[in-house]
Amino acid sequence: MNAALDRSRFAVVLVRPDSAENIGLAARGMANTGFSDLRLVGLEKLEPPAWRTAIHAEPIIEAARFFPTLDEAVADLNLVLGSTARVRHDFPLVTLDEGLRRIADHPAGARVGLVFGNERTGLTQAELGLTNVRFHIPQAGRQPSYNLGVAVTLTLHALAFRGPASPASRQGFALTHAEQAEAGRRFGEMLDGLGFMHDTNRDFITEKVQDIFFRMTLTAKDRDIILAMFRKALEGPRPARAGTKRRKERT
Amino acid sequence: MNAALDRSRFAVVLVRPDSAENIGLAARGMANTGFSDLRLVGLEKLEPPAWRTAIHAEPIIEAARFFPTLDEAVADLNLVLGSTARVRHDFPLVTLDEGLRRIADHPAGARVGLVFGNERTGLTQAELGLTNVRFHIPQAGRQPSYNLGVAVTLTLHALAFRGPASPASRQGFALTHAEQAEAGRRFGEMLDGLGFMHDTNRDFITEKVQDIFFRMTLTAKDRDIILAMFRKALEGPRPARAGTKRRKERT
Repeated sequence: MNAALDRSRFAVVLVRPDSAENIGLAARGMANTGFSDLRLVGLEKLEPPAWRTAIHAEPIIEAARFFPTLDEAVADLNLVLGSTARVRHDFPLVTLDEGLRRIADHPAGARVGLVFGNERTGLTQAELGLTNVRFHIPQAGRQPSYNLGVAVTLTLHALAFRGPASPASRQGFALTHAEQAEAGRRFGEMLDGLGFMHDTNRDFITEKVQDIFFRMTLTAKDRDIILAMFRKALEGPRPARAGTKRRKERT
Repeated sequence: MNAALDRSRFAVVLVRPDSAENIGLAARGMANTGFSDLRLVGLEKLEPPAWRTAIHAEPIIEAARFFPTLDEAVADLNLVLGSTARVRHDFPLVTLDEGLRRIADHPAGARVGLVFGNERTGLTQAELGLTNVRFHIPQAGRQPSYNLGVAVTLTLHALAFRGPASPASRQGFALTHAEQAEAGRRFGEMLDGLGFMHDTNRDFITEKVQDIFFRMTLTAKDRDIILAMFRKALEGPRPARAGTKRRKERT
């Protein structure tokens, strides 16, 4: 047992799960491993079969919270990890162990979300873009992927019983997810103001910017520096005198 | 992925599972982690719900073998590990990780069984007595225990992706389970011949002997030495001349 781990910092987020049994099985896995904050995206209520599999985990499903979108479900969290079974080209993806190690890079008080997609379709590219870290659970072949409730339990078991004993805190305290999203939006607006976007690339660039911002898992200081730097660049060259001076400094 | 691991050496043994869905889920976990030898004790056939949960794992449940008793199911194996959620006093029990480490103590060719009991009742004391190593999967509290399919998958995932890369082979090649059982029986008979057993303690002593014999995980050489030593003791003191001599040697 990892006694140093404050389990109240962690939320399990299930996005559009098809099977109520799987929700119950995930809740049972949370009870097995000592976690309790369950968040459900894209559902309005739980169907009765959830109770059948949530053995000794009824309090968890009864306290589950419902959100229309992933963005809203993780708004208050500092670090969001998304699980995916699909390995895509040119897509930063780490193993479960490495993903959990990344958690230990953050301060002990950071709030962490573990996000799992629909049983058949997984998380969409856009939803993975909302996560700070994308991980996969090692498996023997490409098929089958792990059952949803099993994937949640494997992840929590590794976190609770195999993770680093105490956080290394190599990173500062990250912004909340909502603040990270806002920083990305402001950056996108600046790019747009620069004439960098047009109708044919706006969606693509906006998504890329968001993706990059989440991967950076910004602290407040990081955000302030990045936005200030960029604001300076946006302001363009100073009046001739200052501009000349700057050019000299660069040589 | 633990490339050094020959998965064909491993069998998953489910004893009297109640739920066909759980059998399917266990089979899916086997497929996820690359194992295929499924043995079922106390069932005669699989019910249709097993197919519902055995996603991409149909070949495993279709090749599953049925045995009337655990003894028969593991007769050909060299090392048998039994999973239990109950922690008993005075009962040697290791964690999952330590259990898997014990496997690495055996030669690479040793055949290994991973045994899981009924969902509600687990393995009986007598069935645990048939195992060489008893392990539990760490959990946060006493309740709930892991779902059966989840427990199988957690175990195989740890074995496939977290186990030692190559066996350390600190032990010789163990006898098969059937041979270990036979050695225990012969020892019990010798004890009985000594007048050590009577009607009120025969069952208790027989069970203890069996228990001790399985925990030793004997090699053929171990067995020969133990039985030979004991046979010598059984023969009793030599004729007077030799007896006197022996007494002298001890001083």
